[in-house]
Amino acid sequence: MKITAVEAIPYTIPYAKPLRFASGEVYAAEHVLVRVHTDEGVVGIADAPPRPFTYGETQASVIAAVEGIFAPQVVGVRLVDRELIASRLARTVGNPVAKSAVDMAVWDALGRTLDLTVTDLLGGYTDRMRVSHMLGFDEPQAMVAEAERMRDTYGITTFKVKVGRTPYRRDTAVVRALREGLGEDVELYVDGNRGWSPAESARAMHEMADVGLLFAEELCPADDVLGRRWLVRQCDVPFIADESAVTPADVTREILGGSATAVSIKTARTGFTYSQRVHHLAEGLGVEVVMGNQIDSQLGSMCTVAFGAAFRLTSRRAGELSNFLDMSDDLLTEPLRIVDGHLAVRPGAGLGVEVDPDKLARYRTDR
Amino acid sequence: MKITAVEAIPYTIPYAKPLRFASGEVYAAEHVLVRVHTDEGVVGIADAPPRPFTYGETQASVIAAVEGIFAPQVVGVRLVDRELIASRLARTVGNPVAKSAVDMAVWDALGRTLDLTVTDLLGGYTDRMRVSHMLGFDEPQAMVAEAERMRDTYGITTFKVKVGRTPYRRDTAVVRALREGLGEDVELYVDGNRGWSPAESARAMHEMADVGLLFAEELCPADDVLGRRWLVRQCDVPFIADESAVTPADVTREILGGSATAVSIKTARTGFTYSQRVHHLAEGLGVEVVMGNQIDSQLGSMCTVAFGAAFRLTSRRAGELSNFLDMSDDLLTEPLRIVDGHLAVRPGAGLGVEVDPDKLARYRTDR
Repeated sequence: MKITAVEAIPYTIPYAKPLRFASGEVYAAEHVLVRVHTDEGVVGIADAPPRPFTYGETQASVIAAVEGIFAPQVVGVRLVDRELIASRLARTVGNPVAKSAVDMAVWDALGRTLDLTVTDLLGGYTDRMRVSHMLGFDEPQAMVAEAERMRDTYGITTFKVKVGRTPYRRDTAVVRALREGLGEDVELYVDGNRGWSPAESARAMHEMADVGLLFAEELCPADDVLGRRWLVRQCDVPFIADESAVTPADVTREILGGSATAVSIKTARTGFTYSQRVHHLAEGLGVEVVMGNQIDSQLGSMCTVAFGAAFRLTSRRAGELSNFLDMSDDLLTEPLRIVDGHLAVRPGAGLGVEVDPDKLARYRTDR
Repeated sequence: MKITAVEAIPYTIPYAKPLRFASGEVYAAEHVLVRVHTDEGVVGIADAPPRPFTYGETQASVIAAVEGIFAPQVVGVRLVDRELIASRLARTVGNPVAKSAVDMAVWDALGRTLDLTVTDLLGGYTDRMRVSHMLGFDEPQAMVAEAERMRDTYGITTFKVKVGRTPYRRDTAVVRALREGLGEDVELYVDGNRGWSPAESARAMHEMADVGLLFAEELCPADDVLGRRWLVRQCDVPFIADESAVTPADVTREILGGSATAVSIKTARTGFTYSQRVHHLAEGLGVEVVMGNQIDSQLGSMCTVAFGAAFRLTSRRAGELSNFLDMSDDLLTEPLRIVDGHLAVRPGAGLGVEVDPDKLARYRTDR
């Protein structure tokens, strides 16, 4: 049960096509595979997807933090001591992705040791999540075609539409085209990645008032403090705080400050131990949660499913689980499959997935 | 791993001396032992201590709720599915003690099945808690003598003093005598059990301003809404919500409403699954927590230790863990021992304690 070593292995896998958002573009997944080894020979795994433009972490900073700071603090500790590990990791400011990968690899190793899924370790509410698909910037008809393809191929009926372009009518035209093209049975919500001003956001939401949106997310910068409160106050759907509310204290400030009315949980940045805190905090404050995606690999997506399926509140809404489809390849031995719009918890112990050694050898960048 | 049956067994054990509070008196522990059985022959146990004057539950109502409502909802469910069980129990309003005993017996059975302590299942922060002792109403010198006896016998140095009598100077005289008799090295806090008015509470706190209190708890009725806010605003120590903040939603209302600045967690009324929620909510809101006592038996006290030791925030403060000393006997095979002011997590699986069949046969009241 004791942790004997923690590895951080950089790897790079190109995207099938570049991903574009208001906050930047990415061409390849430059991630870090974290492996936690125990004295019983168990290996727990998790993925660290650094987001330099969002959290300031890079592949190099994740490796430095995991190997230089966190590994010495957790070696010798038992896998069950997640709260002790979390409190030690919390001594270091920032580095959310690095911390979370260590935390999740510990939970995976614990599940493997006990022969339990991570979902069961966390609470075991259900065994699958509905999948929502993110639609990146493009022309309206191309985005409708993409949504139709996802619906027809994978059974996905919830779509998160990236917005935040100027003029905002480029985006509202897309949302309207999606509703007209896909009908009333699909769920649509919008994510601005802080691209609009509060006033643009308000005008855009007003224009989309009849489209029947599920949520709006980070339409404008959270640091436009009063502007965002003004926007959220008039917003007639829950307004999701994502990158503006990473820690529990952030959530408290945003929700109580009136700058958000829902919370995105991303296991890539709060692991399992802190995602549980964010979940319980949001539930106790009486606001909705959505399982978000940090452009996760299949391993990262499995972490999101494992957590989201463990609780009622997180499994009630579709989770953002399809980004891995944009990668040209992956590290896992068996690819994840979205069936009938759902991703299922893998039945095996821990996260139920394994890294393919040949693929890791091909994509790792440290040798 | 599947639950096959849930038993609810009433038992009565007299107190060595009656317990007196502002909210009532109790002469005997009229509790319910809850046992959860699984298809692998594992038996999980927990104690339900009904508090008619506080939550409206009685021994009979607990048995009716466990046998009639909750047992049919959890039989056939796997032990790991705590979130599913919690959501099913939550369909029924009230009955906090009955629900919590079922919840905790499930966690105990899960720990026994996996050969893990409940503390390790929950988070494994540490393996013991400091003990605080509750001093019931008496004359000042008798209460000082009792505190000295507890300090000398058990190494306890934190005392919760019951207050709420009229005139309030009866109680402030006790608190002052305790500080003078025990010196600066002991921690003292006061619990009014809603006995004073807000104005009496303010005058009493003002008079004790130089005594160096750690907390004040439920000095006046929570339903004196504005009066209590007025009191809490001027209180210079954290003001603990106890019976006024049982559910996470209560905690949110009390803390955000300015009627409390700290929270008491009692496993007897929120089990493990909801105590975790209250803990994470309180931590996320940035307020202190104290592990409270519902005049718990040894089994109930072990539940409090098991939970409190699992997290940093709950183990930082002494927990209220000594009420079992007032019972003339107990059901466990091996009595709990307070050593050097601490109660340790039992090393065995689950809660690490066993019910003595002879003692149960002697004290049960259903045969």
